[in-house]
Amino acid sequence: MEKLILHEYAPSGNCYKIRLTAALLGVPLERRHYDIMRGETRTAAFLAEVNANGRIPTLQIGERFLPESNAACWWLAHDTALIPGDRFDQADMLRWMFFEQYNHEPNIATLRFWKAMVGEERLSDTQRAQIPARQVAGEAALALMDDHLSDRCFFVGERVSLADICLYAYTHVADEGGFDLKRWPAVQRWIAAVAATPGYVALAD
Amino acid sequence: MEKLILHEYAPSGNCYKIRLTAALLGVPLERRHYDIMRGETRTAAFLAEVNANGRIPTLQIGERFLPESNAACWWLAHDTALIPGDRFDQADMLRWMFFEQYNHEPNIATLRFWKAMVGEERLSDTQRAQIPARQVAGEAALALMDDHLSDRCFFVGERVSLADICLYAYTHVADEGGFDLKRWPAVQRWIAAVAATPGYVALAD
Repeated sequence: MEKLILHEYAPSGNCYKIRLTAALLGVPLERRHYDIMRGETRTAAFLAEVNANGRIPTLQIGERFLPESNAACWWLAHDTALIPGDRFDQADMLRWMFFEQYNHEPNIATLRFWKAMVGEERLSDTQRAQIPARQVAGEAALALMDDHLSDRCFFVGERVSLADICLYAYTHVADEGGFDLKRWPAVQRWIAAVAATPGYVALAD
Repeated sequence: MEKLILHEYAPSGNCYKIRLTAALLGVPLERRHYDIMRGETRTAAFLAEVNANGRIPTLQIGERFLPESNAACWWLAHDTALIPGDRFDQADMLRWMFFEQYNHEPNIATLRFWKAMVGEERLSDTQRAQIPARQVAGEAALALMDDHLSDRCFFVGERVSLADICLYAYTHVADEGGFDLKRWPAVQRWIAAVAATPGYVALAD
């Protein structure tokens, strides 16, 4: 296999998704760190070589660069049991991954970033004004997940797939964004199940 | 093939993606309309039967329901030339589809919805305060697309894929959200190329 380099900021859940996928598959990744708080993903060199969108993570595969965390997980999991082979299940897995990027991450990850990393006192007025709506939308995403998980162990089928990995990344640290996970017991059970998967690594590893 | 029913709101670009994918593939879709302006996707029946997330589009495949526009396109395009077979290209196509849902749709589709459908005078103060940031972020998404398309006809490989279909849906009507497409000539060329694809249907069809 070509050499894999993860261009990342380690505390980011989006970067962690890729490390967790690689760990579950036993695939080694070299890691290269950028401090997003110091603008290290907006330098001319980063924009020209790694990702014109100025974001981490980007997975480097040999000489090619693949941005977007969920797409990088897809590449890694090609032809493995982390992607269901069944046509409907595969699309349904992607459905949860798109839900994650649209309904979950912008609320749950953003509030974690604003509250635990930037600090509320450093937010702009426009950002601060968005906190209540993002809290409500994040709670709705967690409630939907809880409902879905009420009678099943994983999001799609009978075993862990990329849908679980991608949703797990920011859900299991949602308390850092001000979400009380005790309200969603099925989500809590599922978090424990994902963390018990052979090969699992923690966000801080 | 099982009977396919698209639960939709016709002016939505997310719904149009699915109709365009089906049209390019020659797959017939039955269409069922919901007026999102009247809350028809938030009724108890809709939430229980169609999509617990209260959103259109949802593609009904026989007795099963698949929310998330890009996932529905994926299901439809299974084993067709709209999804590249090459491992990197397939992940790269998904990369653009995740970009669409994260960087493009929340800005370009939201401003179109707010300006052309809801009406600026009906927006909340919090919504109105977000317009400048969404304008800047939408322009950044279009600039990134323009740069990528400067030396190629389509987003991935040499022909139309789901990446083009999913990005086309809201890009070609971005003027309705206040974006001047003349600023991005490669995007304009690409819009013409997608519209020239055999089987193409327009948003209003």
